[in-house]
Amino acid sequence: MKESPTAEIALIIIDMINDFQFEHGEDLAKKALNISDPINKVKEQFSRLNLPVIYVNDHYQLWQANLDKIISHCQNPISQPVIDAIRPSSQDYFLIKPKHSAFYGTALNTLLHQLNIKTLVLAGIAGNICVLFSANDAYMREFKLHIPKDCIASNNDHDNDNALLMMEEVLKADIRSMSQKNYNISALFPS
Amino acid sequence: MKESPTAEIALIIIDMINDFQFEHGEDLAKKALNISDPINKVKEQFSRLNLPVIYVNDHYQLWQANLDKIISHCQNPISQPVIDAIRPSSQDYFLIKPKHSAFYGTALNTLLHQLNIKTLVLAGIAGNICVLFSANDAYMREFKLHIPKDCIASNNDHDNDNALLMMEEVLKADIRSMSQKNYNISALFPS
Amino acid sequence: MKESPTAEIALIIIDMINDFQFEHGEDLAKKALNISDPINKVKEQFSRLNLPVIYVNDHYQLWQANLDKIISHCQNPISQPVIDAIRPSSQDYFLIKPKHSAFYGTALNTLLHQLNIKTLVLAGIAGNICVLFSANDAYMREFKLHIPKDCIASNNDHDNDNALLMMEEVLKADIRSMSQKNYNISALFPS
Amino acid sequence: MKESPTAEIALIIIDMINDFQFEHGEDLAKKALNISDPINKVKEQFSRLNLPVIYVNDHYQLWQANLDKIISHCQNPISQPVIDAIRPSSQDYFLIKPKHSAFYGTALNTLLHQLNIKTLVLAGIAGNICVLFSANDAYMREFKLHIPKDCIASNNDHDNDNALLMMEEVLKADIRSMSQKNYNISALFPS
Repeated sequence: MKESPTAEIALIIIDMINDFQFEHGEDLAKKALNISDPINKVKEQFSRLNLPVIYVNDHYQLWQANLDKIISHCQNPISQPVIDAIRPSSQDYFLIKPKHSAFYGTALNTLLHQLNIKTLVLAGIAGNICVLFSANDAYMREFKLHIPKDCIASNNDHDNDNALLMMEEVLKADIRSMSQKNYNISALFPS
Repeated sequence: MKESPTAEIALIIIDMINDFQFEHGEDLAKKALNISDPINKVKEQFSRLNLPVIYVNDHYQLWQANLDKIISHCQNPISQPVIDAIRPSSQDYFLIKPKHSAFYGTALNTLLHQLNIKTLVLAGIAGNICVLFSANDAYMREFKLHIPKDCIASNNDHDNDNALLMMEEVLKADIRSMSQKNYNISALFPS
Repeated sequence: MKESPTAEIALIIIDMINDFQFEHGEDLAKKALNISDPINKVKEQFSRLNLPVIYVNDHYQLWQANLDKIISHCQNPISQPVIDAIRPSSQDYFLIKPKHSAFYGTALNTLLHQLNIKTLVLAGIAGNICVLFSANDAYMREFKLHIPKDCIASNNDHDNDNALLMMEEVLKADIRSMSQKNYNISALFPS
Repeated sequence: MKESPTAEIALIIIDMINDFQFEHGEDLAKKALNISDPINKVKEQFSRLNLPVIYVNDHYQLWQANLDKIISHCQNPISQPVIDAIRPSSQDYFLIKPKHSAFYGTALNTLLHQLNIKTLVLAGIAGNICVLFSANDAYMREFKLHIPKDCIASNNDHDNDNALLMMEEVLKADIRSMSQKNYNISALFPS
């Protein structure tokens, strides 16, 4: 096996545990289901290589560090297929965030430092809000970024494309889709 | 009733859910049990007045926002009496922290801002480490501080006294014990 | 005079002291000169009402808190007209920032707290980078936002319009131009 | 030469540019002058090895990133000998801080990350306030600490000794004096 288990890379999955109770929420739920498949393909490779998978998720104003309560709060007919598709396993890290960015008011930076991570793969929703602002916070902390275009979604495809463009141009992210990379995580490593 | 339910004050309980698996841990567990009684008297008044009670607790490297897992991790014959005495209720806020300060890598500042809090009552362990460094982080954010001397404890009483002195002199904290104030929360309010 | 000198509002001017030494820098310098006029009209009203004007500016890797060195570093034939138009006065606050956001690695939040500011007017460049990411950091800290569309500019007008749209929709900013408001700062106050 | 110029170590000099206008300020000025000599011996070695020397200094509520203004504000008959002894050179980094900790509201963490620093030597005043709280912030960010006991001072020697003890025990700092190490910076490197 060529891939090193000590690669300095982590997968961050943003806001996929979601109640979708907002305007166009049903649309976004469908898109979230669509990206679950490529995200899970990435996640499987991370897990197989023993690389960290970190969920960072809105806390839905529960203000309690309690995964079960958050999942329970989010469960409804619209969200259920997404939660079923992408629920965190007991091996995954699970952090909660109170605001847009995965770094703001969370221990994410501390966790990444302890794990000696230098490169992030960002996935999740919404691409033009929480993913974008998390990406900038990562960039300001000097992480390298991969944001595969088939692993993020926004309410509106035009906004999603714009966010991808910004993340590519301003934040120097590699936005090639995992399918372009044949879902092969080794394509994420520097050669 | 003179006390206002909109008083801008919160109670922060630090690291009382603890495994006490460290040097002098058994000693600190006894002291933690001793301070549980005055802390609970404060907590009852906060709850009665509908004022926020916020636990901020070490996450024991679980890196999962999951209260049940943390309590379960901490339970042992030494910690059990303390956990039984001071376990958070379902109405209490519960945040986890990765390092000494209750503000570092947590959403505490965001929560306090949303609740419009200007004054903190700090309680818990260890007085000369996590309480002290949380107190300075609160002071730098310009919160007023009450740190009742009978509501904090350290491994070593001399260190606890020193920390109290520093918090009084450098961080302008009111360190009078709750018993000096007759366990009356109205003594915490500006007259 | 109807406007209150204690209004909880500040003007933030981002990256206008600039060397414009980057791709499309000359274009952006022209646009920066164009927005200097409306920004100065806002600034005059803030100064007249004794409201805070805060420059937050890239430090150009000088890593020294030294306004004169930064201005001296930035001066060149392209930047000179902009610097002449918008140079901070000795009454203005002047902070330096190392990254995109005006809040990251700066004392801006502390200053705003001390001044009891709840609402920000953002102006400057580049609208789709430093202004946008500063705006999100302000939004996460729960400031209300005014980002007059004639007071920001980006390399590319399409990107600028997109950023304005995002700041309006996602960050709830009021993006009406100062000319729409007749350059009247009282239009910024809640009625 | 055995010392590596790429050693991941920086010298942080805290609040030595000081107006000493506070209770016991004159006493602290004398102590600050006493520690200037060992600090300068360390600084000379850092400079010779091309290792970073970073001043982090109170901004005296000037809220302007302007070294000259700060020095000018601080100059008085009490402070003059200290400023003369330890004034930053044009090669030194100079950051301003608004509060106790050198990390709070500053770009220090960003600078240290860019310089790839893992170990800090802390020096300056006051040992039991700004040095102590900076040390904890450094510890929470997982820096290794050297705090030579002859390079810090506090108003009161008893408080200084207590702070040193805390930094040694709680923050795992090496507090041996530079004279114990024969003022030899190589003693700071892991063997």
